[in-house]
Amino acid sequence: MNRRDLIKLSSCAVAAASAPVFAAPPTSPEPGAAVSRWDVLELTFAGPSAGNPFLDVSLSATFRQINRALTVEGFYDGNGTYKIRFMPDAPGAWSWSTTSNAPQLHGRSGAFQCVAPAAGNRGPVSVRDGYHFSYADSSPYVECGTTCYAWAFQPETTQRQTLATLAASPFNKLRMCLFPKWYQHNHKEPPQYPFPRSGDVNDYSIFNTAYFQHFDRLIAALLQINVQADLILFHPYDKWGYQAMPAAVDDRYLRYVIARFSAYRNVWWSLANEFDLMKSKTTADWDRYARILGEYDAFDRLRSIHYSHYQYEYARGWCTHAGIQDSRMQLGAQWRSDWGKPVVFDECRYEGNIASRWGNISGDAMTRRFWQAAAQGCYCGHGETYLDPDDILWWSHGGVLHGSSPAKIAFLRRLLEETIAIGPGPIGFTNFADDPMAARRANGSVLFYYFDEHQPAEGTFALPDGKTYTAEYIDTLALTRTPLPGDYSGNAQVKLPGTPWGSLWFREKGLA
Amino acid sequence: MNRRDLIKLSSCAVAAASAPVFAAPPTSPEPGAAVSRWDVLELTFAGPSAGNPFLDVSLSATFRQINRALTVEGFYDGNGTYKIRFMPDAPGAWSWSTTSNAPQLHGRSGAFQCVAPAAGNRGPVSVRDGYHFSYADSSPYVECGTTCYAWAFQPETTQRQTLATLAASPFNKLRMCLFPKWYQHNHKEPPQYPFPRSGDVNDYSIFNTAYFQHFDRLIAALLQINVQADLILFHPYDKWGYQAMPAAVDDRYLRYVIARFSAYRNVWWSLANEFDLMKSKTTADWDRYARILGEYDAFDRLRSIHYSHYQYEYARGWCTHAGIQDSRMQLGAQWRSDWGKPVVFDECRYEGNIASRWGNISGDAMTRRFWQAAAQGCYCGHGETYLDPDDILWWSHGGVLHGSSPAKIAFLRRLLEETIAIGPGPIGFTNFADDPMAARRANGSVLFYYFDEHQPAEGTFALPDGKTYTAEYIDTLALTRTPLPGDYSGNAQVKLPGTPWGSLWFREKGLA
Repeated sequence: MNRRDLIKLSSCAVAAASAPVFAAPPTSPEPGAAVSRWDVLELTFAGPSAGNPFLDVSLSATFRQINRALTVEGFYDGNGTYKIRFMPDAPGAWSWSTTSNAPQLHGRSGAFQCVAPAAGNRGPVSVRDGYHFSYADSSPYVECGTTCYAWAFQPETTQRQTLATLAASPFNKLRMCLFPKWYQHNHKEPPQYPFPRSGDVNDYSIFNTAYFQHFDRLIAALLQINVQADLILFHPYDKWGYQAMPAAVDDRYLRYVIARFSAYRNVWWSLANEFDLMKSKTTADWDRYARILGEYDAFDRLRSIHYSHYQYEYARGWCTHAGIQDSRMQLGAQWRSDWGKPVVFDECRYEGNIASRWGNISGDAMTRRFWQAAAQGCYCGHGETYLDPDDILWWSHGGVLHGSSPAKIAFLRRLLEETIAIGPGPIGFTNFADDPMAARRANGSVLFYYFDEHQPAEGTFALPDGKTYTAEYIDTLALTRTPLPGDYSGNAQVKLPGTPWGSLWFREKGLA
Repeated sequence: MNRRDLIKLSSCAVAAASAPVFAAPPTSPEPGAAVSRWDVLELTFAGPSAGNPFLDVSLSATFRQINRALTVEGFYDGNGTYKIRFMPDAPGAWSWSTTSNAPQLHGRSGAFQCVAPAAGNRGPVSVRDGYHFSYADSSPYVECGTTCYAWAFQPETTQRQTLATLAASPFNKLRMCLFPKWYQHNHKEPPQYPFPRSGDVNDYSIFNTAYFQHFDRLIAALLQINVQADLILFHPYDKWGYQAMPAAVDDRYLRYVIARFSAYRNVWWSLANEFDLMKSKTTADWDRYARILGEYDAFDRLRSIHYSHYQYEYARGWCTHAGIQDSRMQLGAQWRSDWGKPVVFDECRYEGNIASRWGNISGDAMTRRFWQAAAQGCYCGHGETYLDPDDILWWSHGGVLHGSSPAKIAFLRRLLEETIAIGPGPIGFTNFADDPMAARRANGSVLFYYFDEHQPAEGTFALPDGKTYTAEYIDTLALTRTPLPGDYSGNAQVKLPGTPWGSLWFREKGLA
């Protein structure tokens, strides 16, 4: 390895307590420096700049540890610079070597030590217990997402504001587009384009590296504040041509963003926003995109797709979870069972007051959907669309939040996390007892009922045999928690306040 | 006609302003006295009392006016007394003659004059404009029902209270069972039985006339306060055997109650409450019951059936309307279109606070369902199940109302009635414009949008060409009405308060 080819540690180690800022430019530590587990290792090489490196130069590297070998593609970052990014997922000694059709880049090799992660770095999120998620260190991840489709294309002050808002919010996943958006409230040209553009003509043979470098910074900044970046690869709200590129360009684009972003441990892939509105694409196209993700994403990031009118068949193997758009919350438990994987209602309409029905439900209605999802062992997604004098709507632009639901969603998220923390067992909840709004941990340590628009003044609740529980009544909108007197077991008779939007929680005694 | 065989006018002429009381005993006017249109004419005859008149004696009468002939069955009312009831539906001279296997009852004949109805007597309700209802005098009937399944079996003080409550309520239809009810909160023997009963054995060969006379009084009392009596003929909540009688008994029972009650202009028939829970009955049974109604009910009263889990095929010809149990309000418009008849959500859960989920939705949730139905051109049904120290729950026993929804439902009913009154045209609303919560009169004179959980601060509403409208914003829960400034036409841009549970009404100028 040449001294000129530096191993650089990415700057995206988690600094949860720090103010959200864009990631600092990569620094250049000494060769052989240690890399934290689940951080990004970035190898930088000088290589050919003549011709069109995007088309002409192939580069990949294989990373080895004992009997494991993971191969990732490198990418051209402009100015004769090539990069390879890798996330080591196991501590210890790793080695690497490159393959390229450019002699200058071929056969390069090196080694590094993967060391324990910094505090707060829990690794990537993956599916656990069938229907839920956890970090790689086994700590639970209670998915709680929001949406700022086009925040990447807003003024930098707005982007910084978005990060500050997110850091203070309950949201730990952000749906965001990699392509700019053209739609109501989104009728501005982006500051830059993913491909060089002359008039209405895109030069699809070249990636605008500055455009993608900006996403490097955004993803790293999200990682700093513990937010998963749910990257939307294609979408129909487009005036520039990106929704209908030649198939070879689609594929090259996918391999480029996989090479570029997949080593960030907070990346999720969403093949599309509203795939079924993209009339130029066929099922074969979506199948091919899914295969490319499977083949080139060495880190097996979470993968899904989002629809408008025609529900995707989420039972298909490539999806790690269902990232749906639907308002029929009551179907969550059934879908979960049908598909055998986590169900995330990524979009179920947004809190707001715009004219469009998808963007004007009340804050309480938004909160209700989070509870309805949780009570079925599913997850929900937030978005916000309040009219704004500067036309900055959170759902697309980011900025600040105006609505009443985030505080109420935060309350729910804390309840779920607190519950998982009370003892060992499965990390998530499962719908049970033929009640569409009742959930329990599989070991029976916690059960809760969400009463929704119902207001029972009493009830009988069948608790698992052999356990004794305490009970708590929660007003999901007033955000009050009221312990109920006594212990509960068997077919427990409970007196309740008889008010709507309540939730009743049973926790096993001795664990709480 | 003998002097002993009197034509008696029923006492059920409408006296809308009077306090609700049980109908007075039938009086005995002179033979040949005039009968008001749509009132009950009751013929009384002395006849055989030996043997079992219920089984042994057949009696019917044919009523003729010019070229029309309507035949009704008579019924034995005990103590050697036979009755024939008839509702003349057209003014002028009528004649009648009887047929019987008892010589004493055969070949009797007479005549009477049908005269204009008293004020407030608008005749029976039937289907109009395909999906709506009107009285026979063409005045609209905005269906607004409630439920007191077993009020007939409560103490008389409670029954009187029920009538007083109904008279002061918005409800103009009452679902009620002809058989007593055995179920939660309903574990008392009725004061009397429809058939003589010894221990657990019913003598199905004899009708307890006192039992059925009581229903005469209740139906007449409901008529006095302008409430339709939706009589439920069979139901599964039974410990006495009435849910599984021999087929011949079912049929005789149906013919008896048709003979006895069908002349009351406020009678509707519901073949069952939750027919699909009556495991001893087959589709062939229900078909036979429907045929009996069609054959013996000369007045063609409104007919439907109510289900629990398995939706009835309401497209079937015998049903005049769909009287459904369902909470999926958003499907109303589609069902209406599928079945081609009025859709009444007779049961969509009840306002209350009992443990059962069907009986504990909030008053606002109940109100919401009425609005959701109305905005689809459908109708909704109320019920109330608040825990009570004396265990008197409106849904079954009647008594008094405790909930918050009746006043809000009254507000909606007034709006609908006021709207129909503003000018000629179809009496009801039709869902339109691909908006699940928008309705209009077919002539475009009135349109309204129900925003439900949505809270738009602005909107564009496509109004019919060539008309100018005023607009009003209604808070469906706060019960406020706010005229919006200006006139509206074409694609009307409207600023709205941005609060949930609102409704926007456009009324054609010059009509309002």
